[in-house]
Amino acid sequence: MSISTKELPIGIFDSGMGGLTVMRAMRARLPGENLLYLGDTARLPYGTKSADTVIRYAVTAARALTARGIKMLVVACNTASSVALPALNQALAPLPVIGVIEPGAAAAVAAAKGEPVAVIATEGTVKGGAYVRAIQTLAPDLPVVQQAAPLLVPLAEEGLVTGEIARLAVARYLTPLLATMPHPRILVLGCTHFPALKQTIAQVAGPDVTLVDSAATTACAVEAKLEALGLRNPGTQGVSQFLATDAPDRFSRVGEIFLGAPIDPGSVEVVDL
Amino acid sequence: MSISTKELPIGIFDSGMGGLTVMRAMRARLPGENLLYLGDTARLPYGTKSADTVIRYAVTAARALTARGIKMLVVACNTASSVALPALNQALAPLPVIGVIEPGAAAAVAAAKGEPVAVIATEGTVKGGAYVRAIQTLAPDLPVVQQAAPLLVPLAEEGLVTGEIARLAVARYLTPLLATMPHPRILVLGCTHFPALKQTIAQVAGPDVTLVDSAATTACAVEAKLEALGLRNPGTQGVSQFLATDAPDRFSRVGEIFLGAPIDPGSVEVVDL
Repeated sequence: MSISTKELPIGIFDSGMGGLTVMRAMRARLPGENLLYLGDTARLPYGTKSADTVIRYAVTAARALTARGIKMLVVACNTASSVALPALNQALAPLPVIGVIEPGAAAAVAAAKGEPVAVIATEGTVKGGAYVRAIQTLAPDLPVVQQAAPLLVPLAEEGLVTGEIARLAVARYLTPLLATMPHPRILVLGCTHFPALKQTIAQVAGPDVTLVDSAATTACAVEAKLEALGLRNPGTQGVSQFLATDAPDRFSRVGEIFLGAPIDPGSVEVVDL
Repeated sequence: MSISTKELPIGIFDSGMGGLTVMRAMRARLPGENLLYLGDTARLPYGTKSADTVIRYAVTAARALTARGIKMLVVACNTASSVALPALNQALAPLPVIGVIEPGAAAAVAAAKGEPVAVIATEGTVKGGAYVRAIQTLAPDLPVVQQAAPLLVPLAEEGLVTGEIARLAVARYLTPLLATMPHPRILVLGCTHFPALKQTIAQVAGPDVTLVDSAATTACAVEAKLEALGLRNPGTQGVSQFLATDAPDRFSRVGEIFLGAPIDPGSVEVVDL
């Protein structure tokens, strides 16, 4: 019995569990697709590491997915998307590869309507400047400011997404950023961990600031690409599978925060890269 | 020109920069020793990873140090000390290997004088239970409680060691721990990152609680072992060298918090494991 390319899963890759926010949006938008998620939990976080190291890790992780057969790769990690996309496209060609930065930038530009944009992300993403470049490629005159918000990653992973510690940590990064002139009206959550803190971020940012994350727009970009390539798997019975490079119990426990659904620890397969 | 074994450096290994608190204590106590520090910054943190992965990473890192010639290995990482010491002893025999758990446990027992002890550490160290075992080996009837305090690692690495966020995060872990009965009078800082937060921890714990960290007692244990083996290098002109598996600029910037002295980024050599 042969399997058609349409039925192959879409590979989704992240340094850990944050990319499950993208998987969640894809599951909602593309219910017929089979999804194969790989979290590189043995080597997370990527956000504090150098571009060379992130590229090396991302290519190894992507090859573990292609070895199992996938029809498309979604890089559901802002840090890897910001530095490793060219290397991934080259290593995996002709497989289509979609990152989260360009969909996120497109969503920001659409929401901004010419108003200033602020981006919060990991240290690695901010240093690479990929969001600023992607936004200004689409809208060259749009003012963009950015700020690394490294503490928000462990806060999200510990499930500390509301309450006083989360509020103070968010304010530490947002208050100076949103006080820049002209005042940003759009705030891009430039790390897949940050949607878990959305409620607290919205409260600190106030009602004048619109939050944008790349999960929903990445799912749209994936849909468009599948349609264009004739690879869409119709139906509503897609299967989700999970791979992790370490600690499946922690993956399932922390992952539920991001996926918004239970993950059976027994269903998480450990792979060695 | 040959180099005598005495002149060989002592290798110090940590998952990242926290072990520099141990190096600082060794530099103070053993000023004649040459010290070679390796921070596995490409794969940090170890504290959230499984025992198998930590053992594999620790052995690889230790071999990078022994390949350069060292006379002793200090495992300046509580997580690695708690799970990887037997594997390291076996892989590196007959090289002497010293971890931080047993010196920390000895310091706790000496300070406790029969009073209850509390330990805060990473998730990995707490799960392994090595501190509780090491303390109760020395003092079988001593009550010991422990608590994972995962957020304190990124707080220390971001330099957020005082102020409201640090205070609330410390209180989140300490308040329930110190409320256990009978009340602990000794608090072991069971992670080499935690001494950076000592001031805030002392403030939250209050004057009735004595803080113990393993940096000073590990330096004593190293001195005793060097004397016993006739390997002590006399004098006051020991050289310090730094290796990191990633991001030397971040290593030098964050490392200064723990070493308490400047680190020239140009002096940090990047090694690939």
